Amino acid sequence: MSYDVRYVRNAWYMAGWCTDFPAAKPTPALILEQRLVFYRQSDGTLVALEDRCPHRLAPLSMGQVEGDNLRCLYHGVKFNGAGACVEVPGSTAKPKALCARAYPVVERESAVFVWMGEAAKADEALLPPFIGPDNPDWQMLPGHMDYDVYYELIQDNLLDLSHIAWVHRNSFGGGNPDTSKTWADGEVRVLPLPNGVRVERWMPNGRTRPAQEALIGPHCDTLTSFDYLLPGYFLLTSNIYRVGAAERAGGQRPTEEPLFSTWTSQAVTPRAGRKTTYFFCFGPSSRQPGAAQMKEAFRDLAVMAFNEDRDMLTGQQQVIDADPSRRMVLLDVDKAPTMYRRFVDKLLAGESA
Amino acid sequence: MSYDVRYVRNAWYMAGWCTDFPAAKPTPALILEQRLVFYRQSDGTLVALEDRCPHRLAPLSMGQVEGDNLRCLYHGVKFNGAGACVEVPGSTAKPKALCARAYPVVERESAVFVWMGEAAKADEALLPPFIGPDNPDWQMLPGHMDYDVYYELIQDNLLDLSHIAWVHRNSFGGGNPDTSKTWADGEVRVLPLPNGVRVERWMPNGRTRPAQEALIGPHCDTLTSFDYLLPGYFLLTSNIYRVGAAERAGGQRPTEEPLFSTWTSQAVTPRAGRKTTYFFCFGPSSRQPGAAQMKEAFRDLAVMAFNEDRDMLTGQQQVIDADPSRRMVLLDVDKAPTMYRRFVDKLLAGESA
Amino acid sequence: MSYDVRYVRNAWYMAGWCTDFPAAKPTPALILEQRLVFYRQSDGTLVALEDRCPHRLAPLSMGQVEGDNLRCLYHGVKFNGAGACVEVPGSTAKPKALCARAYPVVERESAVFVWMGEAAKADEALLPPFIGPDNPDWQMLPGHMDYDVYYELIQDNLLDLSHIAWVHRNSFGGGNPDTSKTWADGEVRVLPLPNGVRVERWMPNGRTRPAQEALIGPHCDTLTSFDYLLPGYFLLTSNIYRVGAAERAGGQRPTEEPLFSTWTSQAVTPRAGRKTTYFFCFGPSSRQPGAAQMKEAFRDLAVMAFNEDRDMLTGQQQVIDADPSRRMVLLDVDKAPTMYRRFVDKLLAGESA
Repeated sequence: MSYDVRYVRNAWYMAGWCTDFPAAKPTPALILEQRLVFYRQSDGTLVALEDRCPHRLAPLSMGQVEGDNLRCLYHGVKFNGAGACVEVPGSTAKPKALCARAYPVVERESAVFVWMGEAAKADEALLPPFIGPDNPDWQMLPGHMDYDVYYELIQDNLLDLSHIAWVHRNSFGGGNPDTSKTWADGEVRVLPLPNGVRVERWMPNGRTRPAQEALIGPHCDTLTSFDYLLPGYFLLTSNIYRVGAAERAGGQRPTEEPLFSTWTSQAVTPRAGRKTTYFFCFGPSSRQPGAAQMKEAFRDLAVMAFNEDRDMLTGQQQVIDADPSRRMVLLDVDKAPTMYRRFVDKLLAGESA
Repeated sequence: MSYDVRYVRNAWYMAGWCTDFPAAKPTPALILEQRLVFYRQSDGTLVALEDRCPHRLAPLSMGQVEGDNLRCLYHGVKFNGAGACVEVPGSTAKPKALCARAYPVVERESAVFVWMGEAAKADEALLPPFIGPDNPDWQMLPGHMDYDVYYELIQDNLLDLSHIAWVHRNSFGGGNPDTSKTWADGEVRVLPLPNGVRVERWMPNGRTRPAQEALIGPHCDTLTSFDYLLPGYFLLTSNIYRVGAAERAGGQRPTEEPLFSTWTSQAVTPRAGRKTTYFFCFGPSSRQPGAAQMKEAFRDLAVMAFNEDRDMLTGQQQVIDADPSRRMVLLDVDKAPTMYRRFVDKLLAGESA
Repeated sequence: MSYDVRYVRNAWYMAGWCTDFPAAKPTPALILEQRLVFYRQSDGTLVALEDRCPHRLAPLSMGQVEGDNLRCLYHGVKFNGAGACVEVPGSTAKPKALCARAYPVVERESAVFVWMGEAAKADEALLPPFIGPDNPDWQMLPGHMDYDVYYELIQDNLLDLSHIAWVHRNSFGGGNPDTSKTWADGEVRVLPLPNGVRVERWMPNGRTRPAQEALIGPHCDTLTSFDYLLPGYFLLTSNIYRVGAAERAGGQRPTEEPLFSTWTSQAVTPRAGRKTTYFFCFGPSSRQPGAAQMKEAFRDLAVMAFNEDRDMLTGQQQVIDADPSRRMVLLDVDKAPTMYRRFVDKLLAGESA
């Protein structure tokens, strides 16, 4: 299994939270090694162009927004939201080649999604079923972290949650060898989806995380289920039940009410070879009593855990780069990451054809 | 138009101001990717050698000056100003190969010029008509800035002053859209010179820069004229006249006295691929009443403006390096930069032949 | 003479002082561009594995010691001191490919030595006659410094001590042109050894270093003798005698008691291309009255001198890297470095055959 840099292009990538793109000035962003500039037109519509004036290749992100247009501040050439030139100072000519590539953009669930492939193929139906931090059904806060790690290592990390037992023994694992072990021993079901992979993990009669013992009791049945969707969305819900729920459900999704439910939406956005941004929101169901007061605690827990991931994956990246000829030896736990990689292999073969 | 690294070698490059090379110790300098060491002999004569002891390749700039000679302080080998070995400690042998290349050096107008090509072709007649900060006709202070930018981008910037309207709208442009616009709309004449390009720009009936309105009135005619000379000298004079001077002169240089005159000498010295030093002095004519008191203000204005250039060009360089395959789309304003590049193309073809 | 990166592999490299490898946690170390992890087993035995979990290539140095074993903390795979897998969480399979390379390790004289070549060829008889800081015969303190310099430049530096007259004129040289000159003029004898080179230098009737004049008088005969041994050990003893000792000994090692004796053990350990660690201890003979009180002063003198080396060699490295095509011009003083390089050339030819 090789880790050469590769990207699916015909897909919606998360560019940031809506609040990352203010109205006053253009904002640069690097995605799939392409430099983009985002700016808002008079009515607030967000537009994305390549961050490169075609005249002398100055960054348009150093330019200024003028109504619906963006002016390069090197020699004053001005472009509209489609990237067409609308003014060349001191000249009436507007050469056709003097244009900047425009990228389709959608704002949804407080997040910004940009289509990095052929504009003609951009289709909002392909947007992920992302639930954002302002969705009333869940109590979540937005966050992000920058990694010096190739995005497929983060993807592999997310697709095999057995690492929670080790990497996150002090955070998600609960700081307790027994609760932590619950993750290593969970029963995992891996299913292919049309645009990704689904992983369900029953952890029957596991030790409850100490922080939740007062609410739930010392043992519980937990069902976590996540979809990992193209090109890098991790959408997970975790439901905690009274002991016996797994058995009572007989391998199906239980119909009884869970004692506790959480949701998390995460997006892995490749910047460049070893640069990736990780966007996330995480929190309890709004139906949970006191859920609104738990937002910060859930955000802090996520930040603590993602720092643990980042440390480990940064180390892993350094080991890989020190000798790229070394191959991984995959194990049973690698079923989901392997299934997702094969799915991507096929897509990439299609894109390059 | 490609921006691969290339240098004219048979030319005088500005190595610094004379005061940058004190007598007490050797001074290193990187020019055209070559490491040089400068030192002063007993009588003050400045000498330049390659900064590399031929014995074990230690830097001679870590050595010590002994009279007219320079001793390497790794193993004590000593060289004269022509780069010949004059002492090998503990040995009477002085192998002929044990020599350091010497570079022709001239000090003039408070500046140091070094010949980077074949020593036999060095000719003081090829020195630029540089006016230095100590020249009594002008009131100027010396300065310099280091850029992380390939020198030809700085060259293109200087050869098309229409950028003053945008990049320097808050400095040279006067912080005023009307005065700034004057630069975008100027009438430009571009002339080939034997060793470069001349650009004259009449800005008739333009808005005066606010800072000079009390002296000159709200409108004026301005004639700026500069020569850009091999291998990177920008020598500009700017004359401000009463409105109508352009018309009265009928396309010729006016004979009437200007209301205000300034001079600037600038030198673009390539250090290495993306490293360039920009030397400059700038100020009013000594005939201007109170000119000596204006020196600092003119120097400060130049520093402010060159920081604006550096920010923009650093951004431009990053965009170019992110995708070197992208080509510029040149416009009317690019006439002078293009003429100068063609002149250099020919010289380089000659040097490589 | 070229300075491409090359290493003798079948040799004991110094990995650090024993105290650099505590019992509580695994310690990473980079040697010959290989990432190693050291940890101590229950009984304190030091073990070295490659710092790379074969599963997903995470660093084992981020793992935890469990008795005699080391567990990777990414997905919990556990290895014994021979690098064999002893546990895969959630699985009974232990694929044979799931192992980490183990390196032979020896602790001796307060130092850790690791064999970087074929384990079958590791032989303690090949360890250097290193004398460590805790050896009762000498009063020494341990130290180390990191260089951004290719190790063979450090090797050449050590093999020609004539540089003491110039680089160390203010430290080992004594801060005095006369005492310093003694080093440049010494009579040198260079002898091949089975695993390196011996260099003896008589400095008869030299000026005593000012710091020792009270003890020794204004002049003395000094005999320094060092062995430079594979793969990078510098073992030097310096003996100071009353004037005339060199003549009285008639070219042999003198039988009379020296007035003062010092010892130094130094090890040059390549980390990677331009990264090298220099380990050292240095001090007077325990028979010297007041020797124990001199430890710190000798350590400080060494640190001062090795900083001088590091400055010079860092400059030399930069000059070499600026133009790797330039060749050195070797002199009489280069006899020992050249002899040692030829010895290494032969070994490398053997290893690659």
